[in-house]
Amino acid sequence: MIRKAALLLACTLYAPHALAQETLSGRYSLTLTVGGTTLYGALELEQKGDSLTGKYRGDDLTGTRQGNQLTFTARNKEGDRAEVRLTLKGRTLTGSETQFDASNHGTTWLQIAVVAEPVQIPASATPRRHEFSPTVFHRAFSAENKPVLTIAPGDVVHTRTVDAAGVDEKNVARSLGGNPETGPFYVAGVLPGDTLAIHIVKLSLNRDWAISDDYLVRDAVNPGLAVIMKDAGKTIHWHLDRARGIATPEKPDVHLGKYAVPLRPMLGCVAVAPPPAFAAPNTGDSGFYGGNMDFNEITEGSTVYLQARVPGGLVYIGDGHAVMGDGELNGNGLETSMDVEFRVEVLTNQPTPSPRVENERQIMALGYEGSLNEALRTATSNMQRWLASDYALNPSEAAQVIGTAAHIRVTEAADRNAGVALILDKDVLKTLTK
Amino acid sequence: MIRKAALLLACTLYAPHALAQETLSGRYSLTLTVGGTTLYGALELEQKGDSLTGKYRGDDLTGTRQGNQLTFTARNKEGDRAEVRLTLKGRTLTGSETQFDASNHGTTWLQIAVVAEPVQIPASATPRRHEFSPTVFHRAFSAENKPVLTIAPGDVVHTRTVDAAGVDEKNVARSLGGNPETGPFYVAGVLPGDTLAIHIVKLSLNRDWAISDDYLVRDAVNPGLAVIMKDAGKTIHWHLDRARGIATPEKPDVHLGKYAVPLRPMLGCVAVAPPPAFAAPNTGDSGFYGGNMDFNEITEGSTVYLQARVPGGLVYIGDGHAVMGDGELNGNGLETSMDVEFRVEVLTNQPTPSPRVENERQIMALGYEGSLNEALRTATSNMQRWLASDYALNPSEAAQVIGTAAHIRVTEAADRNAGVALILDKDVLKTLTK
Amino acid sequence: MIRKAALLLACTLYAPHALAQETLSGRYSLTLTVGGTTLYGALELEQKGDSLTGKYRGDDLTGTRQGNQLTFTARNKEGDRAEVRLTLKGRTLTGSETQFDASNHGTTWLQIAVVAEPVQIPASATPRRHEFSPTVFHRAFSAENKPVLTIAPGDVVHTRTVDAAGVDEKNVARSLGGNPETGPFYVAGVLPGDTLAIHIVKLSLNRDWAISDDYLVRDAVNPGLAVIMKDAGKTIHWHLDRARGIATPEKPDVHLGKYAVPLRPMLGCVAVAPPPAFAAPNTGDSGFYGGNMDFNEITEGSTVYLQARVPGGLVYIGDGHAVMGDGELNGNGLETSMDVEFRVEVLTNQPTPSPRVENERQIMALGYEGSLNEALRTATSNMQRWLASDYALNPSEAAQVIGTAAHIRVTEAADRNAGVALILDKDVLKTLTK
Amino acid sequence: MIRKAALLLACTLYAPHALAQETLSGRYSLTLTVGGTTLYGALELEQKGDSLTGKYRGDDLTGTRQGNQLTFTARNKEGDRAEVRLTLKGRTLTGSETQFDASNHGTTWLQIAVVAEPVQIPASATPRRHEFSPTVFHRAFSAENKPVLTIAPGDVVHTRTVDAAGVDEKNVARSLGGNPETGPFYVAGVLPGDTLAIHIVKLSLNRDWAISDDYLVRDAVNPGLAVIMKDAGKTIHWHLDRARGIATPEKPDVHLGKYAVPLRPMLGCVAVAPPPAFAAPNTGDSGFYGGNMDFNEITEGSTVYLQARVPGGLVYIGDGHAVMGDGELNGNGLETSMDVEFRVEVLTNQPTPSPRVENERQIMALGYEGSLNEALRTATSNMQRWLASDYALNPSEAAQVIGTAAHIRVTEAADRNAGVALILDKDVLKTLTK
Repeated sequence: MIRKAALLLACTLYAPHALAQETLSGRYSLTLTVGGTTLYGALELEQKGDSLTGKYRGDDLTGTRQGNQLTFTARNKEGDRAEVRLTLKGRTLTGSETQFDASNHGTTWLQIAVVAEPVQIPASATPRRHEFSPTVFHRAFSAENKPVLTIAPGDVVHTRTVDAAGVDEKNVARSLGGNPETGPFYVAGVLPGDTLAIHIVKLSLNRDWAISDDYLVRDAVNPGLAVIMKDAGKTIHWHLDRARGIATPEKPDVHLGKYAVPLRPMLGCVAVAPPPAFAAPNTGDSGFYGGNMDFNEITEGSTVYLQARVPGGLVYIGDGHAVMGDGELNGNGLETSMDVEFRVEVLTNQPTPSPRVENERQIMALGYEGSLNEALRTATSNMQRWLASDYALNPSEAAQVIGTAAHIRVTEAADRNAGVALILDKDVLKTLTK
Repeated sequence: MIRKAALLLACTLYAPHALAQETLSGRYSLTLTVGGTTLYGALELEQKGDSLTGKYRGDDLTGTRQGNQLTFTARNKEGDRAEVRLTLKGRTLTGSETQFDASNHGTTWLQIAVVAEPVQIPASATPRRHEFSPTVFHRAFSAENKPVLTIAPGDVVHTRTVDAAGVDEKNVARSLGGNPETGPFYVAGVLPGDTLAIHIVKLSLNRDWAISDDYLVRDAVNPGLAVIMKDAGKTIHWHLDRARGIATPEKPDVHLGKYAVPLRPMLGCVAVAPPPAFAAPNTGDSGFYGGNMDFNEITEGSTVYLQARVPGGLVYIGDGHAVMGDGELNGNGLETSMDVEFRVEVLTNQPTPSPRVENERQIMALGYEGSLNEALRTATSNMQRWLASDYALNPSEAAQVIGTAAHIRVTEAADRNAGVALILDKDVLKTLTK
Repeated sequence: MIRKAALLLACTLYAPHALAQETLSGRYSLTLTVGGTTLYGALELEQKGDSLTGKYRGDDLTGTRQGNQLTFTARNKEGDRAEVRLTLKGRTLTGSETQFDASNHGTTWLQIAVVAEPVQIPASATPRRHEFSPTVFHRAFSAENKPVLTIAPGDVVHTRTVDAAGVDEKNVARSLGGNPETGPFYVAGVLPGDTLAIHIVKLSLNRDWAISDDYLVRDAVNPGLAVIMKDAGKTIHWHLDRARGIATPEKPDVHLGKYAVPLRPMLGCVAVAPPPAFAAPNTGDSGFYGGNMDFNEITEGSTVYLQARVPGGLVYIGDGHAVMGDGELNGNGLETSMDVEFRVEVLTNQPTPSPRVENERQIMALGYEGSLNEALRTATSNMQRWLASDYALNPSEAAQVIGTAAHIRVTEAADRNAGVALILDKDVLKTLTK
Repeated sequence: MIRKAALLLACTLYAPHALAQETLSGRYSLTLTVGGTTLYGALELEQKGDSLTGKYRGDDLTGTRQGNQLTFTARNKEGDRAEVRLTLKGRTLTGSETQFDASNHGTTWLQIAVVAEPVQIPASATPRRHEFSPTVFHRAFSAENKPVLTIAPGDVVHTRTVDAAGVDEKNVARSLGGNPETGPFYVAGVLPGDTLAIHIVKLSLNRDWAISDDYLVRDAVNPGLAVIMKDAGKTIHWHLDRARGIATPEKPDVHLGKYAVPLRPMLGCVAVAPPPAFAAPNTGDSGFYGGNMDFNEITEGSTVYLQARVPGGLVYIGDGHAVMGDGELNGNGLETSMDVEFRVEVLTNQPTPSPRVENERQIMALGYEGSLNEALRTATSNMQRWLASDYALNPSEAAQVIGTAAHIRVTEAADRNAGVALILDKDVLKTLTK
């Protein structure tokens, strides 16, 4: 069983825009501590006289303020309610939450300590440019890794990623292998329920070699092909000719003597941290938080949309490939180090159920699940929600657009989750009436 | 159990080029009758003096000729052998086959009557152009439907297809619905084991409307989306504006008032007949014989490769779509009637395990199986065999090319089999050393 | 596309009990001919004065009788309507149906000729016993095969099945291999929409050997195991010791020198004919019509429930196994000929969406789909409908019973469709309140 | 990419029996530190004179001892080699490993610090009984949680587990929900590559209620059933009548007024810690380390086999169900707290690729993967390896036994991984010749 305790695990999805003046109205970052675990959420308060309304961890709240004392009740759709008492000290609200499960059995529940701090998206007067040289690399997409840098929405970060084996642009191993990541980057003002738009401003190779192999992954071979491939598995070194824009094997087999594949640098991993109550995924995994998506369209000029689950979002990047066939059927792309410039924008209170990617020509809804069939379902559902929220389409309209215009690509077949992208051309979307 | 009787069901995969002069050397079409079922195959004879060698139903044969009497033995890899006695009368060989199963249990097996007729690919002096107006439409890809036309390799056929509901370009229902097919076309000289290259010379709309719907198929919806889509399912009529090259809904919902999707005519079905010992698939099904592949790249200018399993191949076409999103997620494309011109070339003795498509830019190996995961495996195996046979790549080389250059698309998610295409660009293949 | 033409393909699911006296009230077998295809259905008429009500192909009808002329209209949920005109001659009604599709596009549709013949379930005064010696065996579950015997509900049929390779109890091949079937048996009075309860009264071995092999099917091997199994595939002969109730390999490998597995005779195939508008499945396939289900619980004493889709149901049986591991992972069970006694009861107007099996201890809802995941979904849905119709459970109650008491077995992993059984113990069901 | 760095991640699978006297021969626990990550392994040394042989992290080693200095080289199958230099101080060996990757590209790799400590399975003079009252509960199967108790093989531990929501036998929440675990227990003398046989001596309910719900999980519903179930999801409280051995709903719906299902206590989670280089899975996940397997046969009297990946194994238990239908289709079993007694035996140097369970009647090989189809493949492969190692069967023999005698059950359909058990009866296995 894993579904229960949903009440405690649920992270806030919605929170409003800040209005604060004299009142306590505004947007707060919630930190809850329960049984040694930290949970995050968002609190939106609207104070009128002594009356409080708003959202607490995604649920509507009503309550009152008496001086420095705030008490309110939040209810979810199932009829469970949370009663919250907070005390104002400085600008911080501190107190506790008591849960009343509609289906409680007389259980004595854990204490939930609550701290609420006001947050604001920094006024983006002048976006900054950060030069960040990583010294530590992470092998899990964890909410508990210390941020390496705090950035404001709109800032540009220039940094570097090591290759999947941990080797940098100078040929020096900087980490144990397994997609070690650069980051996490903390985006100021971001709360759970906001979506980060991570724009890949620049993505360039910074060395002239990559490794891959001649293996085919489990998801690509039937029993007959498994027998044919039984002796494969050797490492292949590739020369990256940045001047000519091609990759060639360093010691090619006979029929590959002149084989050349165009360079197309991409990032195998872009992620935000999942909530800390969810054990940190290893950097080969993927899901709602992005992660090791290995999607061939996460290239220079693309934007990756991921919903923040913790304050600051905590952005990770890594696993650069000089070029990769769809699905990463070797289990490796052309693994290499990269120079990366990215910029993060924030879509406040806009949840994104599953990763999305956009470039000049297309919008791409991704699904990552245990099989390609489930991944297609998640991708289609992701696109239907995108069309509903951003294009106002009802379910019938969304189905007509998807049925007439979708491109469907397999993005990932090498890792634990399989990935599928459901893609629509912007030229077609332009004809929609908003 | 279904695997057994493989010995009897196995169809010939290989047969050589005809050399016939005074001798019996040459290529023969085999018709076997066993227990009321007809099986087909190929016989290749090479006569030197009285000695016979060659291939019988894919297995090596050795034997002797004495006047009009031929006796030979063919053995397969499992050690089973078939003894064949034939008598020459005119140009036809008639007789019987007796099987000796390596694992026989004293069973009295059925008689196998054998007729072998010499065949030749017609000398393609001057390819002809056939105008063919269909009067009958088939709802199964059957080996037992009478050919509507016999064509020579290189000939061009101009014909028409009705829409999936059986309605023609004049708005007249010509058949019960369910992808009724035009054909089958018999290609002279073709034997089981040859591959047909079916070139779509021209594919054009011949009426100004199509139908589809606002439903999403089972393979595209998870439980949440199923509930959202629960009231969908109505028929949508589309206007096909051939002058402007777009399709628009006739009575659009509010946000689709100006929705326009570019026309991209394609054939949902291209098939050869499976062997008659295999029950004829309905025209919604797909597999090694092609069928209802619904692949978005079977458009004007493309070539579909399908291995013949019966003499003449028996080519079927149908299920035209004015445009369709990948995977046919509505369960329908924009279903309409079509004018089709196609030409068939023959690749003698070249088996093709699973359908393939080629156009100016790409080669595309398809897989159709019960799930997308299995379809990807079949597609990858299909491509590995293509790279081995046509590009001489060993398994390691093939893996390197696939791993660095593959595009993977979902072709079909609406029917019993799911479909995946593994695609390579010809620009990359040009750099291979043959 | 394959979904369309549903209007024409839809087979009647419901039909009422016969009341006929002076009036035309009663139950009729419908035969429709459209574009060369035959469709079947049920008509239920209730005549009061000149007024007609009832069901036509599953839809409510209203109309009038004037002498020998009947006219009525039937409407489905989508708002499509069918207008039917019939003339009474003797006891037969003959005429035509005209369809008015709610979404018609001015299309001229095919003529639909209608013949309605009154039917009655024979009064089961004294059930008969039939001794039936098969002379012909079928390799497709076809609606077009001529019935070999007509039986009344309650009759017992004693017959024999050949093994999957077509070999009978005397070691004589009687058919080409591939699960050749005994039947079809026509059950008098049965219409589409009735369910047949096929009770396996007796199932006994009639020879002392069986064949199988040492192969593992595709769905059982991952790439590593495929390489380990790469040289497997030889035929294994088994001795069936009916006295001791065990099977032993005839020429065992060293560690199997004393290997003995208990005999447990079962039928791999039990089927009804699918509707003729659906191309006849080969006898290795499975689905809503049953077929090659390879379910280990179709043994003596069990009852198989299958919904009739054509008049008489057309029951097929075959593919006996002396014993088989779940899933038929060798691709074969211990394939042998059988003596079979069965009895068919009819559940009038009770649809069964997917095959069901029952024995003394359990009820078993089956699902057959392209993957085990989909098969589990179909099986669960099948059980939910069973619990709703026969035990009056609402969805919440059904979920609670399934969640606390289900057994889930893999029934089939060797053929095109995978199979899953969701099973409930009758001991638990006894505690339900009807 | 995630496959690379395999060299560094590989955990030792084999290690020999200890012989130590005057020499350094014997079994050592290896702790490697590389780039801040800790890796574990086993070292087996055999010293003859100054010569060293044995196994280092699963690879054969050869080297020499000079006083307190040991130097040796270990090579894997790919031709990579590791050179190790260690210094003896007391009984501990300390030093470093340098890797020479066969495919190195001139990279400067990380330093690998090595510590080797001699270990011995405690002589099991008198097994002890431990009473352990848990105070902390873990929500990840982590190698980094501090052991709560060290036990010797053969010892019996009596402890308790809280329910999936963290509530104990006294109705007190002791942890945040999500399958909080009791443990980890450190088993003295255990090294990576050993298998733990965790015997469930006693498993008894310790309170009279459980919770579940009326939901059906995603893997159990097709779109039609999803719509039928759309309003489900409420919590159901069950009364556990230990005297009568049944569970009944506390506030039953009408048809469940007398519904009673027999109690059958089981543990949803039994796990060892995965290697620390693999991010710790959350307690809803499953895999090679066991985890949230939800297998209905992990009941009193059963033994769970899991391969240790870290020293001491680190055993976790939790997620007790009073009874559960196969697959946990509600997403919950009857979740309750438990009293547990277990005993661990150690199978030295016997790897187990995937979890196994055994009871008096059967052996059960499990597979947990992203789909049921893949889970079946893993389970079959697991069983083939079991039959090879413990019953000496060659691949052909194993296939014959599996094909004739396997039972296949779905164990898990509620969580991220789906589970399948391939089961053989001991009565059949008894007839094998070892």
